[in-house]
Amino acid sequence: MSTEQEVHDVARRARTASFELAVATRQVKDAALSAMAEALIAGAPEILRANAEDVQRAKDAGTGANLIDRLALDEARLEGMAKGLRDVAALPDPVGDVVRGSTLANGLELRQVRVPFGVIGMIYEARPNVTADAAGICLKSGNAVLLRGSSSARSSNAAIVAALREAVQGAGLPADAVQMVPGDSHDSVKHLMRARGLVDVLIPRGGAGLIRSVVEESTVPVIETGTGNCHVYVDKAADLEQALAIVLNSKTQRNSVCNAAEALLVHADIADEFLPRVIEALHDKQVLIHGDERFGEYDGVVAVTEEAYAAEFLAAEISARVVESVDEAIEHIRRYSTGHTDAIVTEDQAAARRFVARVDSAAVLVNASTRFTDGGEFGFGAEIGISTQKLHARGPMGLPEMTSTKYVVTGAGHVR
Amino acid sequence: MSTEQEVHDVARRARTASFELAVATRQVKDAALSAMAEALIAGAPEILRANAEDVQRAKDAGTGANLIDRLALDEARLEGMAKGLRDVAALPDPVGDVVRGSTLANGLELRQVRVPFGVIGMIYEARPNVTADAAGICLKSGNAVLLRGSSSARSSNAAIVAALREAVQGAGLPADAVQMVPGDSHDSVKHLMRARGLVDVLIPRGGAGLIRSVVEESTVPVIETGTGNCHVYVDKAADLEQALAIVLNSKTQRNSVCNAAEALLVHADIADEFLPRVIEALHDKQVLIHGDERFGEYDGVVAVTEEAYAAEFLAAEISARVVESVDEAIEHIRRYSTGHTDAIVTEDQAAARRFVARVDSAAVLVNASTRFTDGGEFGFGAEIGISTQKLHARGPMGLPEMTSTKYVVTGAGHVR
Repeated sequence: MSTEQEVHDVARRARTASFELAVATRQVKDAALSAMAEALIAGAPEILRANAEDVQRAKDAGTGANLIDRLALDEARLEGMAKGLRDVAALPDPVGDVVRGSTLANGLELRQVRVPFGVIGMIYEARPNVTADAAGICLKSGNAVLLRGSSSARSSNAAIVAALREAVQGAGLPADAVQMVPGDSHDSVKHLMRARGLVDVLIPRGGAGLIRSVVEESTVPVIETGTGNCHVYVDKAADLEQALAIVLNSKTQRNSVCNAAEALLVHADIADEFLPRVIEALHDKQVLIHGDERFGEYDGVVAVTEEAYAAEFLAAEISARVVESVDEAIEHIRRYSTGHTDAIVTEDQAAARRFVARVDSAAVLVNASTRFTDGGEFGFGAEIGISTQKLHARGPMGLPEMTSTKYVVTGAGHVR
Repeated sequence: MSTEQEVHDVARRARTASFELAVATRQVKDAALSAMAEALIAGAPEILRANAEDVQRAKDAGTGANLIDRLALDEARLEGMAKGLRDVAALPDPVGDVVRGSTLANGLELRQVRVPFGVIGMIYEARPNVTADAAGICLKSGNAVLLRGSSSARSSNAAIVAALREAVQGAGLPADAVQMVPGDSHDSVKHLMRARGLVDVLIPRGGAGLIRSVVEESTVPVIETGTGNCHVYVDKAADLEQALAIVLNSKTQRNSVCNAAEALLVHADIADEFLPRVIEALHDKQVLIHGDERFGEYDGVVAVTEEAYAAEFLAAEISARVVESVDEAIEHIRRYSTGHTDAIVTEDQAAARRFVARVDSAAVLVNASTRFTDGGEFGFGAEIGISTQKLHARGPMGLPEMTSTKYVVTGAGHVR
């Protein structure tokens, strides 16, 4: 079989499985999720052995320590993955949820009901925990999943998927609810992206390059996730203690994540007071500041460039600029933000209202750290990613975002 | 300027206009919609003169009577378009609607709020009424619209858009809220489809060919509308009088529309009784029946083909087949339906439940005509089209479907 045939073949088997999943009760799905959690623990020896192969291969290829850390599994991480599956089991089932309903003037009963998408394709990088997370979230939302992780995690993913499939089947659901996309080459990704009609939705998770290529090449509908050039704007009416804490938390609590701040805007009226304090605090945390002329008056600040304003550093770096007004901050954000998360710090109600109404990002925060844009923090219980597109889902995506809807209309012989 | 620059230029002006539209109050938007309605009536002489040019050009080109009828305007049709705009003004404003909200455990206030997409591109065929409809729905939902109608309606569209823009500006909103895409060639459509980042959503309305080409070529997110190969399944437990009325209404009330039935499935147990009656009734309405062997036993039925089962006839034709069970009907629908609307006629609760759960279409109807899948019939008041995709919106799309959402999170100095 060609790679294309292989990909289409797994997609067709996923479609067949999706018919059963769509009508599976919550009881059955939750039992499968529990069994999947147990299978990860019971299968730990094999999974860790497979993972050690991947790690060895990565080390031989000279992969950096950061990436190796993402790739490597141990008992604790497997336990975390199992807990994730149990957590998903505890969440409400989105399928069958009635979104709206009414009785029409002619007596027809109209209901808009959540239904699974059908077949979801996940394309992601070398993080084997995503394999279990995605399988659990898709199964609970009634979707069959096609998993295309990085080839550098292929042994780990194969071992995890084998364990999960056995558990799914043991619980009375089709094993093909969870499948790996065959083939390691970019070819298999390409065929997945072109499997319109066989795959309902593609969700790429990873760096900006991966996401851009999927968005541009795919004919299957895509939900874009997570590039974050997030801004914190400190207004002239900010509580400066609060502002300092929010800037530091947004930038340095964890700097390799999409909801970390990458840009700082400060109102001119408080610059003299706030700049020395925030610069010192950021320097204390080893953050490199790319600043405009006003920031540049202080030691250790490098000159900002257009590229730095636009950058998602994912590192201990931040761009910084002084603005004359909340409107100038809004304009800067419109120009450079990726529409993920942008925050204002202010005690001025009018400024907050203006910022919230005019900044068009998935999350707009007032007096809170950008780090809160997260499915867990929002109380969604599970998150498949953070959408930065406007179609279908925007912001952290939980179980309801993994469904479509259909209208069910019931009459008694109604005709027009 | 090249066509690409021209398209990007109108898209940028739409983006700028969208910032004002996004924060316009309902009062201002409704006043603009009323002014737009008045402008169509006041501008009738010019619009009808321009329309006469289009009609003459179409006649000279040998265009068929059907298409000429869609293209032609008169006072009554202009009044209908004006009424459509006034109806939209009367509908609730979706922008600002709080979809969900909660206070998190740490005291953060979370709200998910409807916001406009920003810039919507409409690609449609030679129906000038769509120009006014789309402009009204987009304006009410806070979106700037780029209109790319058929070049055969270009004079009509230009006259309508000129009238609408003046009204919009007179009401205090930016005229660039409503723009035509410059250029008549396919080139301008191509550049619109590639204007990712400048255009937020594309909505193609028209034939299957147009929609397929937009879906395949566009890098801008697309909402697919309306191809309908709709089925009516008459179960063995159907009330046959009801079934006859529903089949006839679904097929013949208006046969050029996407929610007309194109396929009839009949349970074998009632075939002897029902087939002669339904065949006679369809023949009375001059409907050509493409039937399977059982249907073929009757006079005037032509042999069905795979193509006929898959066809969206949009004409007085129907495919017809006898099935052994509700499951065989479901399988047939899974194979051939376009996922628009499929109906079951039955008095058997279990059969209805099984059909509703297993048929995955935008609308699934029980004992009602397929013709009810319509924004007006559903009580949405205005409809931009009927989505047959699963992402974002499915089924008739009203004003809420023309929005995205954002999360607004308010704290008091919250950090993680």
